[in-house]
Amino acid sequence: WGRRQEVNGAATLAHCLDWIERLGWLENIDRVARGEVTVERAGWQFSDSEIYKLLEAMAWELGRRDDAELEATFASVVARVAAAQDDDGYLGTAFGHPGLPPRYSDLAMGHELYNMGHLLQAAVARVRTAGDDLLVEVARRAADHICREFGGDGRDGICGHPEIEVGLAEFGRAVGEPRYLAQARLFVDRRGHGSLPVPPLQSAEYFQDDTPVIDAEALRGHAVRALYLSAGAVDVAVHDGDVALLDALRGQWDHTVERRTYLTGGMGSRHQDEGFGDDFELPTDRAYCETCAGVASVMFSWRLYLATGEVRYADLIERTLFNVIATSPAADGRSFFYANPLHQREAGAVPTDGVNARAEGGTRAPWFEVSCCPTNVARTFASLPAYVAAVDSSGDGSTDGDVAVLMQYADGRAVIGDVVLDVQTRYPDDGLIRITVLEAPDAESTLRLRVPAWASDAVLTEPGAESHPVAPGWADVRRAFVSGDVVTLDLRLAPRFTFPDPRIDAVRGTVAVERGPLVLCLESTDLPGDATIDDVSVDTTSAPIASGDGASVTAIVADPDERTPGALPFTSAPATPLRAGATELALVPYHRWAERGPSTMRVFIPTADGTDSTAATDGR
Amino acid sequence: WGRRQEVNGAATLAHCLDWIERLGWLENIDRVARGEVTVERAGWQFSDSEIYKLLEAMAWELGRRDDAELEATFASVVARVAAAQDDDGYLGTAFGHPGLPPRYSDLAMGHELYNMGHLLQAAVARVRTAGDDLLVEVARRAADHICREFGGDGRDGICGHPEIEVGLAEFGRAVGEPRYLAQARLFVDRRGHGSLPVPPLQSAEYFQDDTPVIDAEALRGHAVRALYLSAGAVDVAVHDGDVALLDALRGQWDHTVERRTYLTGGMGSRHQDEGFGDDFELPTDRAYCETCAGVASVMFSWRLYLATGEVRYADLIERTLFNVIATSPAADGRSFFYANPLHQREAGAVPTDGVNARAEGGTRAPWFEVSCCPTNVARTFASLPAYVAAVDSSGDGSTDGDVAVLMQYADGRAVIGDVVLDVQTRYPDDGLIRITVLEAPDAESTLRLRVPAWASDAVLTEPGAESHPVAPGWADVRRAFVSGDVVTLDLRLAPRFTFPDPRIDAVRGTVAVERGPLVLCLESTDLPGDATIDDVSVDTTSAPIASGDGASVTAIVADPDERTPGALPFTSAPATPLRAGATELALVPYHRWAERGPSTMRVFIPTADGTDSTAATDGR
Repeated sequence: WGRRQEVNGAATLAHCLDWIERLGWLENIDRVARGEVTVERAGWQFSDSEIYKLLEAMAWELGRRDDAELEATFASVVARVAAAQDDDGYLGTAFGHPGLPPRYSDLAMGHELYNMGHLLQAAVARVRTAGDDLLVEVARRAADHICREFGGDGRDGICGHPEIEVGLAEFGRAVGEPRYLAQARLFVDRRGHGSLPVPPLQSAEYFQDDTPVIDAEALRGHAVRALYLSAGAVDVAVHDGDVALLDALRGQWDHTVERRTYLTGGMGSRHQDEGFGDDFELPTDRAYCETCAGVASVMFSWRLYLATGEVRYADLIERTLFNVIATSPAADGRSFFYANPLHQREAGAVPTDGVNARAEGGTRAPWFEVSCCPTNVARTFASLPAYVAAVDSSGDGSTDGDVAVLMQYADGRAVIGDVVLDVQTRYPDDGLIRITVLEAPDAESTLRLRVPAWASDAVLTEPGAESHPVAPGWADVRRAFVSGDVVTLDLRLAPRFTFPDPRIDAVRGTVAVERGPLVLCLESTDLPGDATIDDVSVDTTSAPIASGDGASVTAIVADPDERTPGALPFTSAPATPLRAGATELALVPYHRWAERGPSTMRVFIPTADGTDSTAATDGR
Repeated sequence: WGRRQEVNGAATLAHCLDWIERLGWLENIDRVARGEVTVERAGWQFSDSEIYKLLEAMAWELGRRDDAELEATFASVVARVAAAQDDDGYLGTAFGHPGLPPRYSDLAMGHELYNMGHLLQAAVARVRTAGDDLLVEVARRAADHICREFGGDGRDGICGHPEIEVGLAEFGRAVGEPRYLAQARLFVDRRGHGSLPVPPLQSAEYFQDDTPVIDAEALRGHAVRALYLSAGAVDVAVHDGDVALLDALRGQWDHTVERRTYLTGGMGSRHQDEGFGDDFELPTDRAYCETCAGVASVMFSWRLYLATGEVRYADLIERTLFNVIATSPAADGRSFFYANPLHQREAGAVPTDGVNARAEGGTRAPWFEVSCCPTNVARTFASLPAYVAAVDSSGDGSTDGDVAVLMQYADGRAVIGDVVLDVQTRYPDDGLIRITVLEAPDAESTLRLRVPAWASDAVLTEPGAESHPVAPGWADVRRAFVSGDVVTLDLRLAPRFTFPDPRIDAVRGTVAVERGPLVLCLESTDLPGDATIDDVSVDTTSAPIASGDGASVTAIVADPDERTPGALPFTSAPATPLRAGATELALVPYHRWAERGPSTMRVFIPTADGTDSTAATDGR
C-alpha cells in the first residue's frame, strides 16, 4: 500500500487536477464567481463533485506528509471554490444562477446536494488533518444553508444521489454540530416514500426511493447510491443509538454479501443502471463492479465495523481494497478502470490519452465522460491509514479497557491510542507479519489482530512463547507489553481453490484461485501458442502452487469441437472437446490484469475433473 | 397459429389502437394537420411508427379476411395520417413544424426516417393485399420526398435507427420504382463511416455506424437496429445482384447464430443498449431477447431464405416464431413481454392495466413507455401466411421448374403458385402433418417440405408408397400429382435434451428440454411444496417424456447447504447439497410461461449426473 500511496500522491492527484482543469470543470466554478454562467457548461451536473473529491484526497495526503506545493495548490482550489459560494451558503454551478434552472428544480437527477455532500467530506478530511480553515468554513456555510432549506420546516425533499447524508453526518461529528446529524437523519428518514419523480425508463429503486431504509432487506438499485446511503444511515443510527435502524442495515449488508457480491468484493452486477442485480445474479463478463461502488462499500463496512467491532466487516474491506479499488489504477496512477468485470471476452483496444465515453473497454483509461472513479480512488488511497487500525474502547470513559486493533497489514508504524507499533511485512506477497511494540501502557493491555476468514492455517507467536495456530477472526494478545516485544502472525499465503455457490449460474462448474487476500486470474498473455482462455480448464485434483506473486495450476488446454457453420451453439449431446495434455499455467493477481497490454481474462475457470458443484450433487 | 391470428385480429389490433389513441400519439398527427403543434407532445420521437406498424397489421389482417368495421377504422386512421403530410411529402410530428426543431436536425436520435420507413412497410402491406389507395399514395409522396432530400445530390445523411432502408426497398419492389431501391442502397452504403454524432455515454456501434455493412463480421450494437439494417441490406444486395454484399450478410448471420443467439432464437444479450453482446455472452437471467428483435430476425432470415433457398434460415424463423414472438402476447392478446429472458429469478408483480415504464418485470404488460413490441407482434401475426410457403422458381421465366416449398406447418390451405394444398395438422402439439393436394400442374412437379434440423427421426410417406425416413433439410416429393394425393410427414415430437456449447459460461453444466420446435421451461408453478427453481437439477440419464404440450423429466430437488450469515457465496470446497429423492417434474412450453400468474422460471436446468460438458471433458 505504501507504493500505491506514493504513486497516488506523486501522480494521481496532479493527473486528476489536470483533467478537471482541462475539461473546464473548475472554470465552471470561476464562472459562477464572476457571475458569467450560461446554460451551456462543461461536464455533467455532478462535475463539481470531482473537485471536492480531489480536495478531499489532497487534504488526506497533506495529513500524511508535508508538501508545500500541494498545500499551495489545495489553497488555490479552495479559494476558487469559496469565491463561487452564494451569500446564503449555496454552492453549485448547474442550477440557481441567472440563465440556469432554479435551485433544487431537479432533485431526482440534479445532484446539487450530492455535490455539496462531497464538499462536506472534503472538509472532514481537512478538519481531521489540519483543523479549521477556509474549506471548513465554506462547508459549514453550505451545511447551514442545507439545514435551513431542507430542515423540518423547509423543503420536504431528498437528493436523487445519496451522499449528502454521509457528508452531513461525518461533518457534524467532525465539527461537533448535532444539527448536521439531525439533518442527515431527516434525509435518511424521508427516503423510500416515492417522493422523487421517476425519470423515463427508470424506477424508484434506482435511487432507493422505493422502500424506506429501515424496511429494506437488501441493497438494490444503483450500487454507489445504495452504498453511500447505507454509510450515512449507519452514521445516523450510531449517533442516535437507533438499534433498529442499525440492525436493518446489518441485515442488508448480510443479504448483499451473501447473494449480491463478487469474489473480488465487487458490487453491482448490471451495466444497466450501474445497479445491483437479483440474488445470485453475478455474471462475470458483464460484472459492473464499479470502482466507486468498491469505495462506497468500504465506507459502509468501515462504519459497521466501528459500530459493532465485528471482524467480517474488516474482512470485506480488505477483499475490496485489494481486488476492486487496487485494480482500478494502473501502476503509474494515471489511468483507471471504471468497471471491474471478472471475465474479459474480447481484448480491449490499446488505450489512448483521450476521454473514455463508456465505462467499459477492457483497458484502463485516463479519464471518463462520467469520471467519478479516479478522484474516488485518489481519496481512498490518501486516507488508507484510517482503515488499518482502531481503538476498541470499553466505552466507560477511561482507557483502561481499550483494545488496540490492527486489522489491515502494511509495512509501517501504527499509532493506536497509547499503543505504538512497528509493523514489518511484505504482505500480501508474503504472509508473515512481524509486529514490534514501541510504546504501550504500563498495565496489561490487549493487542487484537485480524486473522482473515481465508487464513485457515494462521500461526501466532507471542513474546517469549511457542507458536500456536489461531482461527480466523480476532486473535487477542493480552499482556503487560514492554517496548521491544515482538508478536508475529503468519497468515500462510498458500494459493487455494475457491468454489462458487451452486446458485450462481454464471460460474457453475468453475473454480477460482486465491492467494491470501488476492483473487488471481488467467490472462491470455500467459497462454501458450494459439490457445484462448475459452480452451482452458483446471484440474483441481492438483493443488495450486505459489509462483511469483500469483500461482500456477495444472490446466487442460483443449481444442474446441468443430462446429457446423451457421448452427446454433446448442447440441443434442454434451460437447466432447479433444483433450490435450495437462500443462502448468500461471495465474496473476487480478488487480494487475491488463497491465501488460490488452488481454482476455477470467477469474473463474471451468473445472476439468468433475469437482464442480453439479457433479458433487450426484455424490461422486 | 390460427388461434393466434384470431386473437390478434379480434383483440390485439383494437387494443393497440386504443392505447395509441389514449396516449395522444394519434392526436400528435391531428395537431400537425391542424397546425397546432407545440414542443410538448405526447410520447417519444418514434411514437408515429406505432401508428404505421398498426396500419401495417391492419392491412395484412384485411388481406386475410373481410371486415368492414376494420376497413373503416383503417381508412379513418389513414385519412388522419394523410392530413398531416406536408406538401412536399414529409411526415412527422416531432420535427419540422413551427415551434419544433428543424427537420433532420437530430439524425442520430430523431427517428424521422425510421418513422417513415414504417409508413412505407405499411403501404407495402396495403398494395400487396388491396392495391393502390390513399396510404400507398401518402407513402409514395414520402418516399419521393426522402429521395429528393437524401439522394446523391442531397443530404449525405442516415437515420440513427435503420428501417428506412428496408421500407424503401420493399416499397420500391412493391410499386416497381427503382429509385426507391437506389435510395435504400445509398443509405446502406453510407452507413458505418461514423457520420452520426455519438450521444453521450453511447458508441457508434450502437447504431451500426462503426463499420460498413459489407465489412462487418457479426451483428452488433442495438439488436433491432442491426437486424432491420440487415434485412434492408439483403433487399438491396438481391436487387443489385451484389454477391459480395450478400455473402457478407450471410457471414454475419452465421457468426451471429453460432455465437450470439439464444436457444429460443432470441437475439440481444444486453439490457444496456438493448444490444448484442460479445461472442458466447448469452446470460439467461438478463437475456434481453427483445420481442422486436425476434420480429426483425425473422425479417432478416426470411430475406436470406428468399435469396438462397437454404433451409437453415427457415429453421431459425420457426424457432423464433414459436419461442420469441409467440411468447410475447398473453393468450388474450392484450398484454405483452418486451424482453424475453430464459431465466426469471424473482417472480414478477401481478400486472396492472397501466403503462410499464421498464422493458422488464417478469409479467406481461398491456403497454410500455417505449411500446414498439405490441404493434410489431400484431403485424407479424397478421402477415404469418407469408412465411409458410414459397415458390422456388427456376428463374428461366417459365413455371416449369418451379418447386412448391412448404416450410412452416399450420392447419389450413396453402396456395403455392399453381399448387394448392390442404394441410391438416395439430403441429406443434403433434408432429403429424397430412398434406392433401387439391390442385397441381398436369406435368411432374416438386413439393418441397422442410424437415427441421431437430427432427432426426422424421418419416415421410408419399402417395401410394412405403414410409421412409427423411433427414433434416429439404425433403422433395417429385411426381405428377393428382388431386387427392396425400403426402404425410411425421416429425416425431419426442422431447429431447439439448446441451449448450461449453463456451457459453452462463449455462455451463445445464441442460434444456425441447419438444419439436418448442423450447420448454421449468416454472415455479409446477414445483412441489416449498421447493424453488434453484433447488432443482435434472437427471439426464432418464430421457424426458412427453406430457401434455410439454414434457416431464426426472429431477432431483435438493435442500441447499446451510450457509454462514454474512459470508460470501464462495467456499473452499464444492457445495454438497443434501440429495433428496428423484421426482418427476413437468416442463411447459416457454412461450406460455407466466400465463398462470407470476412465477420464477428457467429454461436451462443444472444437470444432476455429470453429463455436463465440463465433466465430459474429463472423458468420463
